[in-house]
Amino acid sequence: MKLTFSPASPYARKVRVVAIELGLIDQIEFVPATVSPGTPNEAYSRDVSPLRKLPALILDDGTTIVDSYVIAEYLDERAGGGKLIPASGAEKWRVKTEHAITQGMLEAMLLCRYEKLLRPEEKRWDVWLNDQWDRAWQGFALFEHRTDTLARPLDIAQIGLVCALGYADFRFPDCGWRKAFPKVAAFHERMMQRPSIKETVPPPA
Amino acid sequence: MKLTFSPASPYARKVRVVAIELGLIDQIEFVPATVSPGTPNEAYSRDVSPLRKLPALILDDGTTIVDSYVIAEYLDERAGGGKLIPASGAEKWRVKTEHAITQGMLEAMLLCRYEKLLRPEEKRWDVWLNDQWDRAWQGFALFEHRTDTLARPLDIAQIGLVCALGYADFRFPDCGWRKAFPKVAAFHERMMQRPSIKETVPPPA
Repeated sequence: MKLTFSPASPYARKVRVVAIELGLIDQIEFVPATVSPGTPNEAYSRDVSPLRKLPALILDDGTTIVDSYVIAEYLDERAGGGKLIPASGAEKWRVKTEHAITQGMLEAMLLCRYEKLLRPEEKRWDVWLNDQWDRAWQGFALFEHRTDTLARPLDIAQIGLVCALGYADFRFPDCGWRKAFPKVAAFHERMMQRPSIKETVPPPA
Repeated sequence: MKLTFSPASPYARKVRVVAIELGLIDQIEFVPATVSPGTPNEAYSRDVSPLRKLPALILDDGTTIVDSYVIAEYLDERAGGGKLIPASGAEKWRVKTEHAITQGMLEAMLLCRYEKLLRPEEKRWDVWLNDQWDRAWQGFALFEHRTDTLARPLDIAQIGLVCALGYADFRFPDCGWRKAFPKVAAFHERMMQRPSIKETVPPPA
């Protein structure tokens, strides 16, 4: 299998963590790719994904799987199933919902990043920036109150949360989430003891 | 169950189509909700989803399920499983990947809509608009070449594609997708014969 990725992509990080935790990392060849809004990449559009997003998993038969969550599901099934995504019961829907929230938090933070960095300064709009940031922030606040979520055995929602927190550290280092959300901070510190999490921290910005 | 929705939301439309096709529509109470970037909605943030997005499914025990795909999975399982999302095999990953592409197409079109309508005129950025639009357009182009996808029995990827096409008609009526993608247009016309699709077309803009 091949995975398109960049060390800075929080979505690719999620898949890398999943692959390490499931013992599948050695079966994956990592293919660096660069995609950025406003920068054409016709080859990626045509051969990998029309959405021009990282990561994509390309199976040995040429089949491409997107997005990061579907790839995580695929790897989980390949490892036997029910490892990082509960296979049944109320817990399944809770974990899937919480993962979807971390996904939305990441999307909101990426929109903030594009607004603050990519867009010409005179075209930035604070209302949009603050709105998107608030979505991510309210997400962190939700997890601060879900102490049972933070204490569960490792699952895809926790991995998604770690990737969102890591992205906040990477791109918004002064946002102060540790001070605002001490239980989430303690959770992150515990998670950082896992090699899968530690080894995939984004490089210095 | 309750579903937060608006008649204009393509994500809520997807869930409505799924619920009708699975015979679950009568078990759902529809709760109109308004969410728009830049317009605070603290009650929705706190009680439904920090992401402030539609739709959300609220179960009778108070559990909330997001996002639209997870809700579709939940309803599919409730209807017996494997109805609109294949339960196993290569087809499962193909349908999930194609659905994820339609999801990304919708996200890109919504970003176009916000750029063209919500953002003050002097702060709009054509590079962003064109980039996002291109993602959706390349997605339509991909499906134009997947004649087997367009001809399959009904599944969640096809429903996602119909919702993306319906959103293009609703918000970008002059974009010309029917002319550019005749096979997709024929698929859409066939799909419009299904009551679930026809009854959920967005209202006149």
